[in-house]
Amino acid sequence: MKIIIDAMGGDNAPKAPVMAAVRAVKELGIGIVLVGRESEISKELQKYDYPHDMLETVNADDVITNYEEPTKAVRSKKNSSLVVAANMLKDNRGDAMLSMGNTGALLVAGLLIVGRIKGILRPALGTVLPAKKGPVMLIDMGANTNCRPQNIVQFAIMGSIYMKNVFGIADPSVGLLSNGEEEGKGDELTKKTYPYLKEAPLNFCGNVEGRDVMNGEVDVIACDGFVGNVVLKTVEGMGSFIGEAIKDMFTASIPAKIGALFAFGGIKKLRKRMDYREYGGAPLLGVNKPVIKGHGASDEKAVYSAIIQAKKTVETNICEDIKKSLLFAAKEEERE
Amino acid sequence: MKIIIDAMGGDNAPKAPVMAAVRAVKELGIGIVLVGRESEISKELQKYDYPHDMLETVNADDVITNYEEPTKAVRSKKNSSLVVAANMLKDNRGDAMLSMGNTGALLVAGLLIVGRIKGILRPALGTVLPAKKGPVMLIDMGANTNCRPQNIVQFAIMGSIYMKNVFGIADPSVGLLSNGEEEGKGDELTKKTYPYLKEAPLNFCGNVEGRDVMNGEVDVIACDGFVGNVVLKTVEGMGSFIGEAIKDMFTASIPAKIGALFAFGGIKKLRKRMDYREYGGAPLLGVNKPVIKGHGASDEKAVYSAIIQAKKTVETNICEDIKKSLLFAAKEEERE
Repeated sequence: MKIIIDAMGGDNAPKAPVMAAVRAVKELGIGIVLVGRESEISKELQKYDYPHDMLETVNADDVITNYEEPTKAVRSKKNSSLVVAANMLKDNRGDAMLSMGNTGALLVAGLLIVGRIKGILRPALGTVLPAKKGPVMLIDMGANTNCRPQNIVQFAIMGSIYMKNVFGIADPSVGLLSNGEEEGKGDELTKKTYPYLKEAPLNFCGNVEGRDVMNGEVDVIACDGFVGNVVLKTVEGMGSFIGEAIKDMFTASIPAKIGALFAFGGIKKLRKRMDYREYGGAPLLGVNKPVIKGHGASDEKAVYSAIIQAKKTVETNICEDIKKSLLFAAKEEERE
Repeated sequence: MKIIIDAMGGDNAPKAPVMAAVRAVKELGIGIVLVGRESEISKELQKYDYPHDMLETVNADDVITNYEEPTKAVRSKKNSSLVVAANMLKDNRGDAMLSMGNTGALLVAGLLIVGRIKGILRPALGTVLPAKKGPVMLIDMGANTNCRPQNIVQFAIMGSIYMKNVFGIADPSVGLLSNGEEEGKGDELTKKTYPYLKEAPLNFCGNVEGRDVMNGEVDVIACDGFVGNVVLKTVEGMGSFIGEAIKDMFTASIPAKIGALFAFGGIKKLRKRMDYREYGGAPLLGVNKPVIKGHGASDEKAVYSAIIQAKKTVETNICEDIKKSLLFAAKEEERE
């Protein structure tokens, strides 16, 4: 197996991707291709010992930054690390790809270069949140706005396959994000989507509410990408708000500082529980081969988690399973 | 001034409303009307000393529970505490009303009994969140789904008036909730709403994202009630998730418990900061007279905060100011 990494994407590139790649070839025994400016990558690589036949570097002189318009950037920067990596994936020179760079550009590269699975109307970005009762996938979290019911049904099916394959959940429960639990609740899209989800080959549990995002009552929460994006960023914002409040709490006074010393183990545990790095990145589901978006702020640990995730995604044949699921989706389309 | 309270609504009724009412007549010097089952209310009232001429009880034998269909309940239960209270407000037998009961039923009573301000297309429920830099109003948080741009513009104007009058913010900044900060970002509704907000008599700062809900960069966040409801419940769910995690953290071990003793002051401060009771209830804006929805779990302190809020809403003539603002809204309608 070979994972292609856009080594220039993210706040800590190329340092973090290189460190994680070195660790991955040593500990996971998989091949890695680092794509980016060869001079910068080798400068980092020189610091480490690793099996050279497992880790190759492919040069790409350009970089797509976070401030560029995605479609334009992907179309014009043919020699950017992201576009080169996507082309390698498409040409079967690797089994999955990972980037910590511009999310929009990765979506565009996924769609235009790696390509949509035939029958998938719109690929979606899923994200796994560390909820109270276990991991929860929120899908779509930003790739698609103004969805139709069939899009949401496909998101639910793809999310369900992901949670089954990557997290080993036998029959993932699926909820439809709404403003109330009863079947009649929701905006127009949600109300129209509900009956389709009931008929889909899914363990559909009905509507869920915002509070269910972090309690983990269901394994997959399906929604339009507009609301998914707002919810994800609300969770992130709330996390950072509380993180700072806890920090303030423990540095406000001398007794508080002493308290922090005693409570250190617990604080560490809480931090670990809320750490986005534990679950890797966000998979782009519905494209022909596994594409993972790592968090822009990823450090070595986060990139390493995302590599493990990419490996699982390949090993468990997620793209194949999504293709198989389309038998149902095709039927839905006919009905429309 | 006289505030009408539905004494039977909420988890702690009639105990909490009665206690808060007694405190209000004594400390705030305002009149209170408690509406509900007279026998139950007087049993609670007997426990306290208070100026009897300031606090009257009006009997209503029925109660609308949280499990009833709102419109049906309001139409059929003419003698419920909620409906009687709303009719009293309409008949000018009080200046504002407050209920901790069924949210949907309060909305319906507000619309059908108290009545929409002429020119307001759809009244909205606002909620004030304790964000990092200060209070933030999220409006609409659940009264309206499938909005049109003109609805959102009116929500923004009403929220802005509320934050100015109740919190004394001179020129409240307003953001439009979206999935990106740039003007072109958003779903169809958001994109259509943006130019109207730019022209409205508002301190409009452009799009804001989910993470801005809890950081307080703007004073008012306007959105459709579907996404507003999902966001509010996500924040609540995340708050309870973290609350439990902090509790676990401090009870996990003996050192942690000792730590908690030292950090007690800080923990208390954090709790206070995240306490929904500090900011009172959710105002229903756009109806003829002030209507406030208190949290269903309100204790005495929360009901008392909501009474203070109702008092401020009356004193600062919010309904009159909303009526005046309609000069602009009327122009918008003509343009449509």
